[in-house]
Amino acid sequence: MKHTSLREECCEANIALPRSGLVDLTFGNVSVFDPAAGLFAIKPSGVPYDALKPADIVLVDLEGKVVAGDLKPSSDTPTHRRLFRAFGDKGVRSIVHTHSRCAVAFAQAARELPCLGTTHADHFHGGVPVTRPMTPGEIQGDYEWATGGVIVECFAQTDPLSIPAVLVRGHGPFAWNVSAVKALESAQALEICADMALKTLALDPAAAPLDACLLDKHFLRKHGATAYYGQ
Amino acid sequence: MKHTSLREECCEANIALPRSGLVDLTFGNVSVFDPAAGLFAIKPSGVPYDALKPADIVLVDLEGKVVAGDLKPSSDTPTHRRLFRAFGDKGVRSIVHTHSRCAVAFAQAARELPCLGTTHADHFHGGVPVTRPMTPGEIQGDYEWATGGVIVECFAQTDPLSIPAVLVRGHGPFAWNVSAVKALESAQALEICADMALKTLALDPAAAPLDACLLDKHFLRKHGATAYYGQ
Amino acid sequence: MKHTSLREECCEANIALPRSGLVDLTFGNVSVFDPAAGLFAIKPSGVPYDALKPADIVLVDLEGKVVAGDLKPSSDTPTHRRLFRAFGDKGVRSIVHTHSRCAVAFAQAARELPCLGTTHADHFHGGVPVTRPMTPGEIQGDYEWATGGVIVECFAQTDPLSIPAVLVRGHGPFAWNVSAVKALESAQALEICADMALKTLALDPAAAPLDACLLDKHFLRKHGATAYYGQ
Amino acid sequence: MKHTSLREECCEANIALPRSGLVDLTFGNVSVFDPAAGLFAIKPSGVPYDALKPADIVLVDLEGKVVAGDLKPSSDTPTHRRLFRAFGDKGVRSIVHTHSRCAVAFAQAARELPCLGTTHADHFHGGVPVTRPMTPGEIQGDYEWATGGVIVECFAQTDPLSIPAVLVRGHGPFAWNVSAVKALESAQALEICADMALKTLALDPAAAPLDACLLDKHFLRKHGATAYYGQ
Repeated sequence: MKHTSLREECCEANIALPRSGLVDLTFGNVSVFDPAAGLFAIKPSGVPYDALKPADIVLVDLEGKVVAGDLKPSSDTPTHRRLFRAFGDKGVRSIVHTHSRCAVAFAQAARELPCLGTTHADHFHGGVPVTRPMTPGEIQGDYEWATGGVIVECFAQTDPLSIPAVLVRGHGPFAWNVSAVKALESAQALEICADMALKTLALDPAAAPLDACLLDKHFLRKHGATAYYGQ
Repeated sequence: MKHTSLREECCEANIALPRSGLVDLTFGNVSVFDPAAGLFAIKPSGVPYDALKPADIVLVDLEGKVVAGDLKPSSDTPTHRRLFRAFGDKGVRSIVHTHSRCAVAFAQAARELPCLGTTHADHFHGGVPVTRPMTPGEIQGDYEWATGGVIVECFAQTDPLSIPAVLVRGHGPFAWNVSAVKALESAQALEICADMALKTLALDPAAAPLDACLLDKHFLRKHGATAYYGQ
Repeated sequence: MKHTSLREECCEANIALPRSGLVDLTFGNVSVFDPAAGLFAIKPSGVPYDALKPADIVLVDLEGKVVAGDLKPSSDTPTHRRLFRAFGDKGVRSIVHTHSRCAVAFAQAARELPCLGTTHADHFHGGVPVTRPMTPGEIQGDYEWATGGVIVECFAQTDPLSIPAVLVRGHGPFAWNVSAVKALESAQALEICADMALKTLALDPAAAPLDACLLDKHFLRKHGATAYYGQ
Repeated sequence: MKHTSLREECCEANIALPRSGLVDLTFGNVSVFDPAAGLFAIKPSGVPYDALKPADIVLVDLEGKVVAGDLKPSSDTPTHRRLFRAFGDKGVRSIVHTHSRCAVAFAQAARELPCLGTTHADHFHGGVPVTRPMTPGEIQGDYEWATGGVIVECFAQTDPLSIPAVLVRGHGPFAWNVSAVKALESAQALEICADMALKTLALDPAAAPLDACLLDKHFLRKHGATAYYGQ
């Protein structure tokens, strides 16, 4: 089997999805990118999570060609592909898509997830953005590819590893990071912060974002050159 | 045992109900229809889910006559019967009734479940309707049969497989589909979407329904002649 | 061991409490009454639920005298005793006290749990009342006995089996019924209905109570002389 | 191994954290103080909860010097140290830090957790305070030590065992008590009361605090010289 470790990392992360509590029914998938080989591994379409084996994982190159695997790749593959093309040289190696319920609520309300506390600041260096509305042409054309496009637009001025998630308007979250384990952690942190934000805004609809000084302190003590933090 | 596979499908789906998280105490039942035989299988009254065996399942014809089974059919049988009479020739083969909590909240608030996002659009081609208030005559007469009647009224102009669920006002959801497994999935999707909608409306009580173009894209990529989607 | 079956019924119900999801930490207890013997069995104070054995259960008579058991009865014993004195000849044989979270929310908001749907009407023939505020004298005196007193006041004109629960203002729910299993079911139904009501009122703060005709239909098809219902 | 029992108590409590439902991912830690020895045991940084062994636990003295253990102590160690210095002679022997979601919501909304009912009064003799905003100097300097400082300020006039928890503004809860088991119980009670308060305030944003007479009754029947209560 070619690219065994890539497929294993991808397979394990997809199996972990329903156990993480982020995924209902079949609403989610994980991909893992190999920058040296210029291809990524992704969940096949229509296989239940707990039945997945590494050999089921499909390998796709950055032009969208299936290079290994007998099954059809997830229908969301063009979205993942567009993100690896844009974010791959910035260190993003894995993407997790879920319909986790609290993050979806912000996506459906077309509302950025604000940074309301240090749990958020430990993972995201600012609010998690919402994509712009897609045009009828984008929706009726190559929809999943265009979905990747509106995500990439949000990060024109932002390092995708400083805010490793996005809310696709009316749809739900995509998260990413330097490995499948880390990308899954970003997806979990996003859902936890969205839950906390829903409860905070119920107490105070005008709750203020975290002080910028505290945001920097928390994000930077865990990430980057001066990181020192561990619970 | 007559109609073994029908009874087994019905038995398995009823056993799956409490495991799905949709059913508290004894608030739910599943039926499965055999159009060729003109009869359906349904949960017996008063048997705990985990004690059900296929031989306990009751077979009832479309006139309401018990044709096999020693136990009393669920008190909700006339509702199921009326739905199979109206929807059976449109492909509906299984009906799931639950009191799942978020769907009940919309039923109790007498509010259609709006389509606020793509999770909803993946399963329901538009808002999930609420039945009209029942009259005192309907309530005091053949109440369970009349409950089926107000449901059928909601689908006078709608293919029941395009919106495979309804909210009975002040009561709770019924869901259906082409098999027991699919009907249970519709019931789960309904509850998930109702939970997401409650959270979305908490963030924005005036949250707009999903763009019609996006609704069509998501429903039609999973259903019908041009379907191509798989996670 | 005297009154073995009474103690076993009480022990099993107390062990079931944390498994029901109604009880956090040690916030709950169950008692069971034997009208012929004029005494009731109740959880001892300070024993973890899963360590309870029938021999640990304390027997108390209606004058408050411990008649069997080496342990101290629950501090809430005077409340249970007052309820058995008032409700025992109306068929109440078991009382369940919990701090289940949604029911507590209504108790803390000093708000009757309204009957907003048929799930409620299947178990309670009308809204579940809130007790009046207790006086400083009642609080500083024999507080647990007085707690029973304000509950009894709520049922001066009401059959306690037609509405088998109450919300003690600022405190939480007591539920009861003809057996420990049925009392526990009343406590569960109360919490489920309170959760549904919280969600319904979030959608519509002015949600109307269920039509009286539908309330009667649902309660009476499950209870009393003309009952016929089973899921 | 030095201080074996202290390390075991600390290890067990840290392992219990994720099982308590209070901790997502790695958001929490527990410390245990030995007043005679003038040192405390604390979770090491970067070790998963379920892999912890007593030998991994780090011992730190009140000057901040690691006196035993090969691993790095939790980055939150200076906060714990400052609290033991201020509260150690008042009987506080263990501190639990979590990001439990409902307590975090109050911390993020910068809102004291009011005492709305007897569940709260059973554990906290009044509202649970929120710390003041930290200054840029405190944040950019010795941040974790300063976090302890703003907590200590809240208890200038209050016995820390009468209100054994605090909400750090924009961050989350710290709880404490006379042992690790009791401190964990305080952290759980805090989260339960915060959940109940969120639901109560959803029903009535102006819900009144519990009557002072009832607050005293409930707290004092469980704590102090005249305690008599047990469920």
